[in-house]
Amino acid sequence: MPIGEDIMSTRRNRRGDSAPQVAGNGLIDRRTLIGRGALIAGAMTTGVPTSPTGAAAEPLTNGPWSLAPGVPIPPYGQPSKFEKKVVRTLSNPNLEPRGSAARTPHHLLDGTITPNGLHFVIARGGETTVDPDQHRFVIHGLVKQPMEYTLDALHRYPMVSRVTFLECGGNSAPLYSKQPLQASVQAIHGLSSCAEWSGVLLSTLLDEAGVDPKAKWLIAEGADLPTMNRSIPLGKAMDDAMIALYQNGEALNPSNGYPMRLLLPGYEGNMNVKWLRRIKLVESPVMAINETKQYTILLASGKAWQFYFPQEVKSFITRPSPGLNMASPGYYEISGVAYSGNGRISKVEVSADGGKSWAPAALQAPVLSKAFTRFRMAWNWDGRPVILQSRATDEAGNVQPTRDALIAERGPPRGTPNVAAFTMEHFNAITSWGVDAKGEVSHVYA
Amino acid sequence: MPIGEDIMSTRRNRRGDSAPQVAGNGLIDRRTLIGRGALIAGAMTTGVPTSPTGAAAEPLTNGPWSLAPGVPIPPYGQPSKFEKKVVRTLSNPNLEPRGSAARTPHHLLDGTITPNGLHFVIARGGETTVDPDQHRFVIHGLVKQPMEYTLDALHRYPMVSRVTFLECGGNSAPLYSKQPLQASVQAIHGLSSCAEWSGVLLSTLLDEAGVDPKAKWLIAEGADLPTMNRSIPLGKAMDDAMIALYQNGEALNPSNGYPMRLLLPGYEGNMNVKWLRRIKLVESPVMAINETKQYTILLASGKAWQFYFPQEVKSFITRPSPGLNMASPGYYEISGVAYSGNGRISKVEVSADGGKSWAPAALQAPVLSKAFTRFRMAWNWDGRPVILQSRATDEAGNVQPTRDALIAERGPPRGTPNVAAFTMEHFNAITSWGVDAKGEVSHVYA
Repeated sequence: MPIGEDIMSTRRNRRGDSAPQVAGNGLIDRRTLIGRGALIAGAMTTGVPTSPTGAAAEPLTNGPWSLAPGVPIPPYGQPSKFEKKVVRTLSNPNLEPRGSAARTPHHLLDGTITPNGLHFVIARGGETTVDPDQHRFVIHGLVKQPMEYTLDALHRYPMVSRVTFLECGGNSAPLYSKQPLQASVQAIHGLSSCAEWSGVLLSTLLDEAGVDPKAKWLIAEGADLPTMNRSIPLGKAMDDAMIALYQNGEALNPSNGYPMRLLLPGYEGNMNVKWLRRIKLVESPVMAINETKQYTILLASGKAWQFYFPQEVKSFITRPSPGLNMASPGYYEISGVAYSGNGRISKVEVSADGGKSWAPAALQAPVLSKAFTRFRMAWNWDGRPVILQSRATDEAGNVQPTRDALIAERGPPRGTPNVAAFTMEHFNAITSWGVDAKGEVSHVYA
Repeated sequence: MPIGEDIMSTRRNRRGDSAPQVAGNGLIDRRTLIGRGALIAGAMTTGVPTSPTGAAAEPLTNGPWSLAPGVPIPPYGQPSKFEKKVVRTLSNPNLEPRGSAARTPHHLLDGTITPNGLHFVIARGGETTVDPDQHRFVIHGLVKQPMEYTLDALHRYPMVSRVTFLECGGNSAPLYSKQPLQASVQAIHGLSSCAEWSGVLLSTLLDEAGVDPKAKWLIAEGADLPTMNRSIPLGKAMDDAMIALYQNGEALNPSNGYPMRLLLPGYEGNMNVKWLRRIKLVESPVMAINETKQYTILLASGKAWQFYFPQEVKSFITRPSPGLNMASPGYYEISGVAYSGNGRISKVEVSADGGKSWAPAALQAPVLSKAFTRFRMAWNWDGRPVILQSRATDEAGNVQPTRDALIAERGPPRGTPNVAAFTMEHFNAITSWGVDAKGEVSHVYA
């Protein structure tokens, strides 16, 4: 399917009466499927409670809620009480003196926007409560005129909005474990989310301050207790870096840096410094702890990667996935997200036979640079065990590697089996979900 | 500025040292402005607390939050306690036996996505609590095979996602009042919001049920106490109508129809039936109360409009706006949202002299059909009283009318001054904000 084809329009592209298989184990052509209900109905016959009724005008589905008033509309709405399970999983719910992670429940979401309450978080010192009236943001160092900004002042500057993903460098590290994990997509890939961010381009403020030609890097620093900081090349700062003030329309969530954070679209999560209090322009990187001891990758060769910035092309299937078991054979949609820190997703392929054959998935328009792209694949499951995989390609031509290929580069897993968190960063290998004959879905290696 | 120009790229389009005025009272060219901090700094000198400091590495903005751990990350994040004012205003907080409205605080938001907690609501019977496991959705009437769907079954069908606005037919009715209102953009335009919705195209399900050639309309009905219902032409149902299950990534908010609603992109809000329980295919409209007694417009000619569906092209300035007073002369960004039920926004013009002169605003990419488009205009306020307006044009060539033109068509306001709610529907006139010499912003007619 061509890049960015509008799925909404595919139902007009009917191709007659057949739904040809496009890859092994029942992957079928969505374009012939949408608008051909008969096939779906056939596929749905087993196990789906269809109780057709010819009854006409009388209420067909009365519940008690149809017979009494509801409740008042709240000033700030909350999700349904029936969705209590749609929450982040927490690595440190009691804030012991170590980092905290909160993971996005991808298997329970759809579309491309992550609600602010469910956006992933990594925080070394917990959720920092910053008084926006007291907070100041400073630009200093190798500039002609150091500047200090209040939140109100920043609101007067020209703003921009963009949808972009953020991903922790340690996301997907569980794929590095020696054995597959009995874990959900949330546990494996939950440190990645996507939102619409609005704020002031950093370049606008740097131009105001006046960049000294000697400046080549800047250090960004947060106002949290651990003083999160990272060195950032000036080129990125002058390109698409943003001082973000809004997240999905409203002020930043406190866990995501309220009242302001640095946003470096496509770059490793921890560089997007939250609760941002200063940016200092300098001649060379400051060798902060987060770019020396942490966030460097030791390779099999004995050399190490340092200052690798963009998150590599990645995709994973969110439905079906572990915890979302399949009730019966028949039609299903395989759906997931893909993204790349290097630009737009150009292709996502799906396999239902463990990588022997692949078919291109539909990409939901608009396909935006450095943002989640939702992919969808039509599938007629015959009830036999299968292995589902997705493989993304970005516009720069990068292809998501197999786990074997990535491990050959990085060296074999170290440490104990099933202890995987933060043992590997930038791990963008293909994920495999096994479906057994009962429809149970689990993480496997293939 | 060309449609959909990516604002992110405008900083590269520097045009030398001048920031030419593009329309009266200080509207300036954003393309020359972004990336020319000197001018902004000059404009910001007065009233903005810039306290430049040459100090280098020491913490510059320590607050108590930098000296102690924060709080644990919550499973479902909530906005900052400092943002308590960012809530919907409620017309019926105690759920007396009448309709309820909850209005979006546009003046406190940015970007194009409305968070689910702040999405506008109109509900006749309050927020209806539907048990998703008990709920059934039925398609019947003039179909070959009546169908009944559980929520789980719908999750197996091919899905789509799209960003679209929703707007109550009665939004902006306050502009019809005889006198300007001392009211915010939330009170005037708060019954309009925008979200990413995901679900199953209605056409997919209708194709499955098999549409009888005699069917030309359908009636959609909700499971709420008032049994909200409306007649919808089959053509729309087969085009882009959706059974929406997700709103901004997560399950629908209960006030917006959890677990499922009808979504008719661009069409009048009440047709997008919430808590959807059935769709019956019929030969002609059923003449429901909401398309006869309500939601018809009596014109000055004595004739009435009935079955008008798309919300007409509209825009309004959200910043500055009433309640967001301006502290001092100098640079400001004028920002707002535009949308049309007939397609994409092609142009938004802004005036700072009550409509005497206009300049094109920048449109934030991507500009999507039937979705909020954020517009931005650079402005150097000289401190004198001005009148700000915005005027949108859509790709179908529709131009937002003046209030005078719309009233000439509809007839003069009836009823008492300042009683405006629901006295007029589909009122898409240009909004005027007056700024006085003190920087106070108020609603005016111009």
